[in-house]
Amino acid sequence: MATLVLSGCAANSATNKPEASAQPNSAPNIIFMIGDGMGFEYISAYRYAMSEIGSEHLASTPFDDLLVGAATTYPEDSTWVTDSAASATALATGHKSYNGAIGVDAQKLPQQTLMELARSKGWSTGAVATVQVNHATPASFFTHHPSRSLYNAIADSYAQQVTEGGWSFDVLLGGGYDYFNRDDMNWLPKLEQQGMTVVTEMDQLDTVETTPVLGLFAPTALPFAIDDEPERLAQMTQHALRALTHKSAQNGKPFALMVEGSMIDWCGHANDIACAVHEMADFAAAVEVVRDYMKQHPNTLLVITADHSTGGLTLGQGGEYAWYSDKVMGINQSLEVMATALLDLPKSEWREYLAPRLNLELTEQQWQQIAAITISPDLKGRSRLAPIRNVLVPIISEHTRTGWTTTGHTAVDVPVMASGPGADAFKGYIDNTDIAKALLKLVR
Amino acid sequence: MATLVLSGCAANSATNKPEASAQPNSAPNIIFMIGDGMGFEYISAYRYAMSEIGSEHLASTPFDDLLVGAATTYPEDSTWVTDSAASATALATGHKSYNGAIGVDAQKLPQQTLMELARSKGWSTGAVATVQVNHATPASFFTHHPSRSLYNAIADSYAQQVTEGGWSFDVLLGGGYDYFNRDDMNWLPKLEQQGMTVVTEMDQLDTVETTPVLGLFAPTALPFAIDDEPERLAQMTQHALRALTHKSAQNGKPFALMVEGSMIDWCGHANDIACAVHEMADFAAAVEVVRDYMKQHPNTLLVITADHSTGGLTLGQGGEYAWYSDKVMGINQSLEVMATALLDLPKSEWREYLAPRLNLELTEQQWQQIAAITISPDLKGRSRLAPIRNVLVPIISEHTRTGWTTTGHTAVDVPVMASGPGADAFKGYIDNTDIAKALLKLVR
Ligand SMILES: [Zn+2]
Ligand SMILES: [Zn+2]
Repeated sequence: MATLVLSGCAANSATNKPEASAQPNSAPNIIFMIGDGMGFEYISAYRYAMSEIGSEHLASTPFDDLLVGAATTYPEDSTWVTDSAASATALATGHKSYNGAIGVDAQKLPQQTLMELARSKGWSTGAVATVQVNHATPASFFTHHPSRSLYNAIADSYAQQVTEGGWSFDVLLGGGYDYFNRDDMNWLPKLEQQGMTVVTEMDQLDTVETTPVLGLFAPTALPFAIDDEPERLAQMTQHALRALTHKSAQNGKPFALMVEGSMIDWCGHANDIACAVHEMADFAAAVEVVRDYMKQHPNTLLVITADHSTGGLTLGQGGEYAWYSDKVMGINQSLEVMATALLDLPKSEWREYLAPRLNLELTEQQWQQIAAITISPDLKGRSRLAPIRNVLVPIISEHTRTGWTTTGHTAVDVPVMASGPGADAFKGYIDNTDIAKALLKLVR
Repeated sequence: MATLVLSGCAANSATNKPEASAQPNSAPNIIFMIGDGMGFEYISAYRYAMSEIGSEHLASTPFDDLLVGAATTYPEDSTWVTDSAASATALATGHKSYNGAIGVDAQKLPQQTLMELARSKGWSTGAVATVQVNHATPASFFTHHPSRSLYNAIADSYAQQVTEGGWSFDVLLGGGYDYFNRDDMNWLPKLEQQGMTVVTEMDQLDTVETTPVLGLFAPTALPFAIDDEPERLAQMTQHALRALTHKSAQNGKPFALMVEGSMIDWCGHANDIACAVHEMADFAAAVEVVRDYMKQHPNTLLVITADHSTGGLTLGQGGEYAWYSDKVMGINQSLEVMATALLDLPKSEWREYLAPRLNLELTEQQWQQIAAITISPDLKGRSRLAPIRNVLVPIISEHTRTGWTTTGHTAVDVPVMASGPGADAFKGYIDNTDIAKALLKLVR
């Protein structure tokens, strides 16, 4: 088990780059960042939201000099529109598969993933996500299951790898505590017995001194960036890089890290533009962390893409030639949290609650529309949020001129960005499986 | 005046490339192709529409290896969403301006365009469009006006340049006959007196023996590709290249040609997906023509972009994970033509007329919705089409799962493609003014 001082400052890690400067032809570290649902529209929205209306220049973003092309994302089974599981499987294994597939091909046969290949070559590996670590995207890089909905089985796969004497990751950070500590099975003491450090608060990472590390910072997904810690992905990415750098320096092998901006997609499904822009800001902050890291460790390849775009987001709605980024940035809470709170409030207090959170000049007619929302007693659980959302989304769309066409995904091509050794392989229009193939080739 | 055999076959033009092989360091020909409204979504739609559902590989497109980045398109005045005039002005002059501006900056001052600079250096110049040649995009490359709506004044600008003894173009092909031959002014005999060949049928170009050439093939815009000649842009592009190549060979100077796929945007405004895909197919055919040309004339820079995206197109609608490209390709007429025809038919014949044109399995309820359309007698002219469109668009969207969010434009970034000498200047995220600046630099 590697001894590791995770609290070391970033400057220290600069000394851990023998492979970068001494062996420039050796395989590079791979940092694969996936913005779940991050179509081109989301980058446009983020940039305009960060810019000042009327100023001469737009805000620069960490994406600007990284864009090299675009990727098609269609799955094996459905009509051009992929889910996160099929696309993550394509990005992890190079194989097209069906919607729902976790690391298995169209015949449900397990296919070697980037992380498994890296592991077999002695590389260090890791993943960071803002949702549960057993969610579709990270799961497709480390496990093999016929269906993404087998959350418990996916958690078991991660854990069994450890208890069976080896593990596929050195660092795994995200949410999902409740899947590892269930009524029918508590994996956590077993994992610790095998030498795994398990932490549940992000600041505990500062004092963790060993790998492997499993960080489970929420029962399922982490809170949205707009509602809580705005840069939790960037923080986890920083910790993961420190851990992997330390481990790599010890064994002289590169590392492969997958970083998922998981909840861009969730805001897209909710048609929640403010939520989406804040998730983009955290993803961009994580990209900044990686770019700073690459300055110290130039033998590192960064590839960024999305698994698909979500929600049919566009920046223009209802015929008007405008997108009011300032109004989007005035909204300071997710629709999820707002709607959940409203359910517990008497209707007489809804307006007072919403006004300082939406910060939009709603018309009296719009306030009346909101007051007229009825939650049918037939609705249970999260479906009780839908009637509230169904009224708030069109109102926000009208004020901000944000367009949405679906609560699902779309087939539009997604951005591909790359920097560092090997980046040339990702230029132009490519398929999502080509991204995996190029990465697998670098490890082989 | 140059003598020119436009009917010469493409192989002949291969002999006209002294500047390419003999002087590889001389300035390249510039072919600047603008898909009006061609956001990334339109390229995705085109590719999937050309591909067979369920086949192992997607259709390749002429765009695939050309993509190098994306561009922001915001105008000087409005909130992030540009019109075609401001964006064409940015692309032609490198200056941000207000929506409506034709070759003038925010202070309404004329700014030198790419074509004017090229002309001043002795280059040959030309433009091809599927709308009237005095429409916003071509107009911004050759004229200077405070408003795009000054169609007659823009036509006069083109013509006056000729009658005043010089002209800004060697070849100008598109629509717009009615603007050059008006009740108050018929420019055509005057232009011919100055040595300009004026043609009004595309096949006349085969026998035209001189430049300059003005081709006006429709009273205003050409018909949509889906309704008439599917590759009229590709044909005009072929003719323009032949004319410019001949002229260039004579004076030993490069040429600059702007090719606009103008009506992609019009289909987008109409939220007409089949129309849009067929316009994309013609634009792609024109790109093929240019790529074939570049094989013979390697000292040619091709840059392709869009001025903005239109309609808020997305490939996914109403929560279903699918985009039915086959159903889109089953539609064989534009909504414009269909709606215009319905206005002249008794309602009893509407279903019989529409069924073989839509080729969609409409429900009885949807047919009843169509039968219930009423055209208010208050509506005049083209606004009489709106009630029909307002019913047909959501029906087509539901069947094909095509999403639209606006009848206007959006602020999302657009693709940038480039190939040939100087193509490196267009990589990554850039602004639309940066595209112009890089092109102007090549001419200077
Ligand atoms: Zn999703
Ligand atoms: Zn337009």
